[in-house]
Parts: sequence; structure tokens; C-alpha cells
Amino acid sequence: MTQWFMEQHTKDAQFRIEVKKHLHSETSPFQKIDFYESDTFGKFFALDDVLMVTEKDEFIYHEMIVHVPMAVHPEIKKVLVIGGGDGGTVRELTRYPSIESIEMVEIDERVVRLCQEYLPQTAGKLTDPRVKLHFEDGISFVARKKDAYDLILVDSTDPIGPGEGLFSSRFYQDCFDALKPDGILINQHESPYYERESTEMKKAHSKIKKTFPISMVYQFHIPTYPSGHWLFGFASKKLDPLKDHKPQVWEQLGLSCGYYNSELHKASFVLPNYVKEMLENA
Amino acid sequence: MTQWFMEQHTKDAQFRIEVKKHLHSETSPFQKIDFYESDTFGKFFALDDVLMVTEKDEFIYHEMIVHVPMAVHPEIKKVLVIGGGDGGTVRELTRYPSIESIEMVEIDERVVRLCQEYLPQTAGKLTDPRVKLHFEDGISFVARKKDAYDLILVDSTDPIGPGEGLFSSRFYQDCFDALKPDGILINQHESPYYERESTEMKKAHSKIKKTFPISMVYQFHIPTYPSGHWLFGFASKKLDPLKDHKPQVWEQLGLSCGYYNSELHKASFVLPNYVKEMLENA
Repeated sequence: MTQWFMEQHTKDAQFRIEVKKHLHSETSPFQKIDFYESDTFGKFFALDDVLMVTEKDEFIYHEMIVHVPMAVHPEIKKVLVIGGGDGGTVRELTRYPSIESIEMVEIDERVVRLCQEYLPQTAGKLTDPRVKLHFEDGISFVARKKDAYDLILVDSTDPIGPGEGLFSSRFYQDCFDALKPDGILINQHESPYYERESTEMKKAHSKIKKTFPISMVYQFHIPTYPSGHWLFGFASKKLDPLKDHKPQVWEQLGLSCGYYNSELHKASFVLPNYVKEMLENA
Repeated sequence: MTQWFMEQHTKDAQFRIEVKKHLHSETSPFQKIDFYESDTFGKFFALDDVLMVTEKDEFIYHEMIVHVPMAVHPEIKKVLVIGGGDGGTVRELTRYPSIESIEMVEIDERVVRLCQEYLPQTAGKLTDPRVKLHFEDGISFVARKKDAYDLILVDSTDPIGPGEGLFSSRFYQDCFDALKPDGILINQHESPYYERESTEMKKAHSKIKKTFPISMVYQFHIPTYPSGHWLFGFASKKLDPLKDHKPQVWEQLGLSCGYYNSELHKASFVLPNYVKEMLENA
């Protein structure tokens, strides 16, 4: 019998992937975790039946969350990742020899351990000596830090369930305080297309732009997320993602990417009118 | 009982939309035609069970196929649309007072008549006095024309069924011959993500770049097409979509758009590495 993974993108729109093998299923104290294998997308996993990462297109998300800030502030040495249990964000960070420490705060240790078992493509660099894992709530973790990081990456789930507090004004203020004077915050910024995600996108932007002097949004194509049109937020105390973009410095590193390049860095901040209007009115 | 429209994006990936009402179904001499109504996407229609146009996001496709060439070559007066039976491309063209004639060649009159009945949002300008409809094969139509058009828009289905010949070398050469010396060809250029579409994308690009001195590709987010990541080809005899881009001239027209803007015009030609590599190796 054919088995399908099914995600409701809206109440009346579904995306389904035929499952070759349901590799693992368990319920942690935080969420239901499932790993699957498919022909087209390779291995993938879902939290509470929301698709998180597929082997086929995780490179898009992870390159875009990491290389954009790294090409603006090449002196980044201390990084905090909140969420990101699959390890893909850390993997991209470990490609920079200049980064000295990467702390990852993931509330659910089981996500990390299962990704290490089933998704070494993303989790394979979590054992890098510069990486320190903290299995606790990112909200209280960041609230204890002052002037500590050059870069904070909020690689969270949607603002329902364990990810909810990572979309609050208090949390963004705590990130501001935890960043050094030239620090950058990148956050998973939802999507403009379907109402559920666009409502969260507007709420997040409204809060972040009250907290950070520079607050911009950039877009990318990630086909396995609802609508395929997804956003990250770039917020900082003083660095501008376009005016302070340093493509020559970044290109000298010689990092090979499947999605990101220096021209795309600039282009990804150019948004369609309907998205710009939503953000301006947020 | 709940009814769903279902499209196979790959053999193992499906997109489903819950149907409030199946408005119409018939089989023309060319294809199966179905019109539906849904909550999230409004009315939409499918040819041979492939989704063509939804009221929610058709503006993205139709703005991007029309405004990009119009902002490069504002003197366009004579336009040929091949396919485009829903009328959305013609609707965007009729917004330009400078355009004198719009010929639309659609092989299947039933698509046009049904869109006029069920989708006035796209088909409502097909009665503009500058528009002339030809219900015949676009391939033989264009083969009879020489030095006749400033702009040809190939608004076709995928290269299976009636759309197949619109992806042939002979057809691209006939378009070249039908264009004036500063003419532009825009074609529906498929998608880089899933193998079926990326194979066609590479084949089309390989043929067009052998025919036209300038052959580039631009991208946009259209969530209801497979992967949501879609492309148009921009081919011309001498005008370059970036070097000859005339944003000031275009902006003076004061056209209000939901997706397209002058910055996005430039940004849409900046492609992710994996797409660039596919096209370079095509």
C-alpha cells in the first residue's frame, strides 16, 4: 500500500509526498518527530507533521540564512544559533575558518540526535570542535547574554508550539542586548503568500523594526515550504545588508554554493510589491 | 463529500486544492478543460489536470510576462501572443496606450470562451478593440509572418500535448523571422526544480540561445505551479533586458502592479547557482 506524507498548507491546500520508508516516529516532550525517505526529495523530517528539511532542497535555506550575514560582516567570530536542530545552519557556519565559536541552543535534544542518525547531510558538522550544543529553551538562554555575539541566527519552527516565544518583542529585545555593537540578527521570517504565514510575517516585522535600527527582509525559493516563497529577516544595530555588503571579501573565501552568490545576495532583498506593502503596513 | 483537485507535481509529489464547486468540465478537440472554485485560490482552471491560472496568483505570471519586455522596449506597437487563452497576458498588454495591435493565436477556442464566462478577471480585456483573436495553431501562424511584430509572447502550456511544437528550434527560428529588428521574444520557460520541468528548461534554452544573439532567463515566485519557482525566457535580436532597461520611462506610465517593479525587473535576472549552471550547460 502506498504511504503518503501530507502537510496542510492551508485548510484547503495540501502537499503530499509518497513515502518509500517511514524511517522513524516518536513523540518527544516537545513535539512529534518523523523521519521519512522518498525518491524525489531524499530523506526528510517533519515536526508535528510540518515538513522541516529535505535532502533535496535544504541547501537553499541553509545557504541563505548563513552566507548573507557573513558577506556583510566577515569579522564574525562568535555565533549563536537558536533552534536549527537539523544542523544545516551549523554546517554552513563551519565552512568559515574565521568563526571561533558556534553555540547552538535547541530545546529538543531528540531532534538533534535523530538528525545525527538519519540526516548526516545536515547534522554531520555538529561535532566540529568549535560547536557547543545547549539543550534548553533559547528564550531564557539569550535573555542571560549581554554583548556576547556577532551573529544570532533564529532557525526556528513556525510560531506555534515550541517556536512561539521566538516571535515575541521581548525575545527580539533580548537578542538585541545579546549582540555586540556591530551584531546581526537573522530570523526565519515566514512567507507572504498564505494568510497564516503572512500574518506571522507582518507581526514579526512590526516587532523587529521597533527593536533594531536596521530591519530588512530577503526572499528565496524553497519549493518544499508552503508556497515555495520564503523570507528571512536581517536586523542589525548598524550594518546594512546592501551598503555594507562585501562581495570581494566573501568571494576570496572560495566557498562553493548551490544557491547563494553575490549578485543574488543583493537581488534577494528586492521584494514584489505585494510583499513590500504588507511589510510597510505591518 | 469533499472534492479535491489534484495535480501530480512529480510521480511522488502531489498538490491538492479542496474544491467548493466544480464549475465546468468538458473535453475539447485538444484537451480536457476544468473550471473550479476554491476558498483560498478563488476560481481556477486546469488543462488535462494541470493547473493553469488561479484568481489568487495569476497577477504574478501575467505581470512578469508583459512588463519586463515593455520596460525594455517602450516603443512596442505590434504584439503577438501565442497561447494565453485565459486572456491575462492580453489584459496586461491593454494597459499600454502605446500598443496599437494585439493578435492572440490560441489553438483552442473553448479555453477562451470558457475563460470569458468563468474568469472575467483574466479574460475581461479580450474585447479591447486593439485585440484580434485567431483560433488556430500558433506554429503555422507565426511561420507565415516576417518582420511583423515588436514583441512575441509565448504563453504556452508545458511541452506535452498541444504545447509541444512551441518548444521546437523551428518555432524559435520562425519567431525570430516574425520579429522586427528590435523585437523581443518572451517564452514560458518551465522551472529548474523538478526533473521533468528542468529537462524542458534546458532543452528550450539550448535551442533559443542558438537562434537569438541575446538569450537570458528570469525568475519569479508563482506558488501554484510545481515548486513555485518559475522562469520566463527573454530573447532578442539586439535589446538587452538589463542594459536597455528603461525604468524611468516605464514608471512615468504610472501602472500599478501587485508583483512587478523596476528593481525587481533587474533582480529577477539574477539566478541561483544551480539554475545558472543548468542553463550554462544546456
